[in-house]
Amino acid sequence: MKEEYYRQLYRQAVKELQEALPDVAWPPSPPEEGIPAAVGQGLDLPGLIDHTALKPDTTVPAVQRLCEEAVTFGFHSVCVSPCWVKLASRLLQGSGVKVCTVIGFPHGTTTTLAKVTEAVEAVACGAAELDMVLNVGALKGRSLRRVWEEIARVREAAGEERVLKVILETALLEDVEKVLAALIAVKAGADFVKTSTGFGGSGATAEDVSLLRRTVGSRAGVKASGGIRDLATALAMVRAGANRIGTSSGVQIARELAARKGEKSLDETAAAEKRELCGDLQ
Amino acid sequence: MKEEYYRQLYRQAVKELQEALPDVAWPPSPPEEGIPAAVGQGLDLPGLIDHTALKPDTTVPAVQRLCEEAVTFGFHSVCVSPCWVKLASRLLQGSGVKVCTVIGFPHGTTTTLAKVTEAVEAVACGAAELDMVLNVGALKGRSLRRVWEEIARVREAAGEERVLKVILETALLEDVEKVLAALIAVKAGADFVKTSTGFGGSGATAEDVSLLRRTVGSRAGVKASGGIRDLATALAMVRAGANRIGTSSGVQIARELAARKGEKSLDETAAAEKRELCGDLQ
Repeated sequence: MKEEYYRQLYRQAVKELQEALPDVAWPPSPPEEGIPAAVGQGLDLPGLIDHTALKPDTTVPAVQRLCEEAVTFGFHSVCVSPCWVKLASRLLQGSGVKVCTVIGFPHGTTTTLAKVTEAVEAVACGAAELDMVLNVGALKGRSLRRVWEEIARVREAAGEERVLKVILETALLEDVEKVLAALIAVKAGADFVKTSTGFGGSGATAEDVSLLRRTVGSRAGVKASGGIRDLATALAMVRAGANRIGTSSGVQIARELAARKGEKSLDETAAAEKRELCGDLQ
Repeated sequence: MKEEYYRQLYRQAVKELQEALPDVAWPPSPPEEGIPAAVGQGLDLPGLIDHTALKPDTTVPAVQRLCEEAVTFGFHSVCVSPCWVKLASRLLQGSGVKVCTVIGFPHGTTTTLAKVTEAVEAVACGAAELDMVLNVGALKGRSLRRVWEEIARVREAAGEERVLKVILETALLEDVEKVLAALIAVKAGADFVKTSTGFGGSGATAEDVSLLRRTVGSRAGVKASGGIRDLATALAMVRAGANRIGTSSGVQIARELAARKGEKSLDETAAAEKRELCGDLQ
C-alpha cells in the first residue's frame, strides 16, 4: 500500500471520528515508531499461536486433542467456543497454556448486553483472552459511537487483566473502515486488533495486517487469522506486523518450523525478515 | 427416503434418548397423522415467509427496507440479528408483521446462559419469534441432556407466548442425528424445528424437510431455510412438509408467485401439490 494512499485513509478516518466522537482524543497522525522490536528478533513462532477450533460441530474429544497439542507444541493459547471454555480451562490448569474464547462470534450482530454477558461468563470460567467481533453493520452505517461503546463495555466487563482482541472482519470492510475500526478498538481499550473470524469470506492478508500495524503502532497487538495454514503464510503475517497468529493448523506449522530449523537458525530467518520488513516501511 | 430406513433411524434415535434421558417419555414410534391440513389447502405462501437479513454487514437502511418489503408483500415476519430487533420492532409496530430473531447464531456454540440472556432481551425488545441454534457439537458428542436442557431453558426464558424454533443445521448432521435433534427439540418445548442457518454449508433439502415433518408430525412446525431463492424451491419445501420458509429472497418469490397466479389459481396448485405429497407418504 502506497504511503500517500494510507495517509489519506488515516486522515479521512480521523476526520470521521472527530465528528462522531468529539469527546475522544484521536491521534491526528499515524504512529511513526514502526513495528515493535519483539516481533522480529528471536522469534518464538509457536508462542505466538492461538491454537484454534471454532467449528460449530467441535466435540469434547476435539477440544481435548486441541489442548494436548497446545501443551506439546508450546502454543500461546487454545481458542475455543464459549461452550468449551470451562472444559479447556480444566484441562489446561497449571500448563501455562492460556484459554482464549470468542465473543459475539462470528457475526458480531448480537447485542452489547449479550457480548458483555459472554465476556463476564467466559472470564468466570477461566478465559484469559477474549476475541470479540465488532458490529460490522454499525461500523458500515457509521454508528461509530455504538461501535466504540460496545467495545468499551466489553473491555470493562473483561477486566484489565484479560487480553481483549477486537475482530474487524477485514474481508467485509473498505480500507478506510479498517483504519476506523482499528482506531476505535484501540481507543476503547482493545489489546489487539484481529483481522478475521475465519468464517467471513477471505481471511487475513499481509496487506491488511500491515495496514493495521501501521495504524496501531506499538499501542496494540495485531492478530492475523483466517486461512493461515502453513509456515510460509504464518511468517508472511509476522513479517507484515502480526504478533499473534490464529490458526487451526498450528501443528502443521510447528512441524514445518521444526523441519526448517534443521536447515538454518530461526534467528537468522527472523533477522532477515525484520530487515525486509523495515525496508517495506521506509 | 425409504420407509424402512426411516423407521430404523427413528428406533435408533429413541433408543439413544431412552438411555440418555430416561425421565422423559419418548414417543416409541413416529406419528402416523401425516402432514397437517393447513399446509396444502388455500396456501398463503407469503404468509409463511420469514423475510430474512442476517448477514454480518447488514445496516440500518437494509433493515428499514426489509421491514417495508415485509409489509408490502404480507410476509409473516422479518428475521433480523439481535442488534436490530429494537429497530425492527419500532418500524413494524401495528403492522401485523412479526419480528423474529436468532439466538446463539449461527454456530450454536455459545453457552446456555448466553442463549437465555439473548432470548430474554430479544423478547423485551419486541421479538415474537426466536430461532435458536442448538449445540451441534454437544449433539454429536451425545451430550443429549445438555442439548435438551439448553432448549428447555431458552423455552422457559422466551415465555409461552413466543414462538421458539430450533435450528438443527442439518448439513452438519447424520440422518439419525436429525431425528434425535428433532425429537429433543419438540420434547424440550420448541414450536418449530428449522433446517439451517444459511451459513453452515448447504441449506434446506426437501428430503430433510420431509424427514423432519415425518418425525414431528403435527406436534410442531417445520421451517425450511438456507438456499431457498425462488418459487420452485419454496414450493418444493412446502410440498415436503414445511409450513414456514426462511429466505432473503422473499420479494423475488412473491413476485414469481404473483406472475404465476395470473396463469392458474394457487388453490389448484396447492391441491395438486397436496395430492402429490400424500402420495409420497403412502
